[in-house]
Amino acid sequence: MGRIAILGGTGPEGIGLGLRFALAGEEVVVGSRAAERAEAAAADMRTKLVAAGCTTPVRGADNGAAIDGADIVTVAFPYAGIGDLLPGLAPRLAGKIVLDVINPLIRVKKVFALEPVAEGSAAEKIQALLPDSFVVGAFKNESAEELVEIGHPAEGDVVVCGDHADAKAAVIDLIGRVKSYRAVDAGALVNARFTEGITAMLLNINRRYKAVTSIRVLGLDDH
Amino acid sequence: MGRIAILGGTGPEGIGLGLRFALAGEEVVVGSRAAERAEAAAADMRTKLVAAGCTTPVRGADNGAAIDGADIVTVAFPYAGIGDLLPGLAPRLAGKIVLDVINPLIRVKKVFALEPVAEGSAAEKIQALLPDSFVVGAFKNESAEELVEIGHPAEGDVVVCGDHADAKAAVIDLIGRVKSYRAVDAGALVNARFTEGITAMLLNINRRYKAVTSIRVLGLDDH
Repeated sequence: MGRIAILGGTGPEGIGLGLRFALAGEEVVVGSRAAERAEAAAADMRTKLVAAGCTTPVRGADNGAAIDGADIVTVAFPYAGIGDLLPGLAPRLAGKIVLDVINPLIRVKKVFALEPVAEGSAAEKIQALLPDSFVVGAFKNESAEELVEIGHPAEGDVVVCGDHADAKAAVIDLIGRVKSYRAVDAGALVNARFTEGITAMLLNINRRYKAVTSIRVLGLDDH
Repeated sequence: MGRIAILGGTGPEGIGLGLRFALAGEEVVVGSRAAERAEAAAADMRTKLVAAGCTTPVRGADNGAAIDGADIVTVAFPYAGIGDLLPGLAPRLAGKIVLDVINPLIRVKKVFALEPVAEGSAAEKIQALLPDSFVVGAFKNESAEELVEIGHPAEGDVVVCGDHADAKAAVIDLIGRVKSYRAVDAGALVNARFTEGITAMLLNINRRYKAVTSIRVLGLDDH
């Protein structure tokens, strides 16, 4: 058990992940630019969690304060915000495990696609913005809609990638504690371009089938 | 039941698909630049199929002759070859359903990645090279290794994309006849960049886990 910060944690993806991490027994600190907004989100989350019989501590803080003391810092900002927000947080994030869950999604004529990213993926851009942090990409494909429904077990595999073995192992360990998720290690951080692409594909499938989909990797029964 | 041509059909992916299509009751014509090479591959396939109790006709032909009379023309060339091979075949492929199963894979320091494609994906490049054909991208993620093992049912979902509704429906129908595969319609052909990316990701997962993986889309139980 440890402490997980979720920066940009007042959006639906951040809230959904925070709920799942709290249910897994992790102390959660929701971060936002405004501490009051973070605390309001945390209060809502506590209400939901208590109703589910979970009393793991969840609190709000401004992004900077949320980082301090966290074992893993999740970045759940909208993609468009990272260039503005991360450089100012970089000194406090130095030496930290940064869990990136961001997709550079755009929508072109109703079709979801990825915004071109010079670095190759949101994850690689975040690693470039935070050169002294240990970035791990994961939870790219998990829909906020499903994450917040804590009455239902989460479905699917969480594909993980990263260039720092210890940081990746810590995130894989965290995923293993979230009920019914399985971590699949795809290797180096360059694979984030593929996991981010899966999100766009799943959103297009969702639209077509009026469904909320996720993926499973078949053929790994031995691990 | 119809006739499926497989251009570049003497490689492992083409042979594997040909075997599965024949088992599904489709007449298969293996295409190659050299008709004798195509016929030799077809003879090997017939031997395997007969041993499995399947007598669906499988024969070889040069690529051009293989196209004539085919209901669906599969292109299974190596990615590097399409710029040379397809323009010459374009007139014969005009008006045809072209099933593209090609991934623009490269390997950088043991990590599988995608070669940058100006059109966005191999599928879109093929559609650009064959403007009068109806290109459908599918079977991008299915490993040749698994396809050729006809004693084992194929596992996983076949994600399909394309801009021509009738052509896509024909391919989805074909997939539905291949034992144990399920077609998932991801929408427009631009999604091929994501399905091709999944192949690179799965190959990296395969290397890490010493496995042969495929994907399933969860959450579509209703369709």
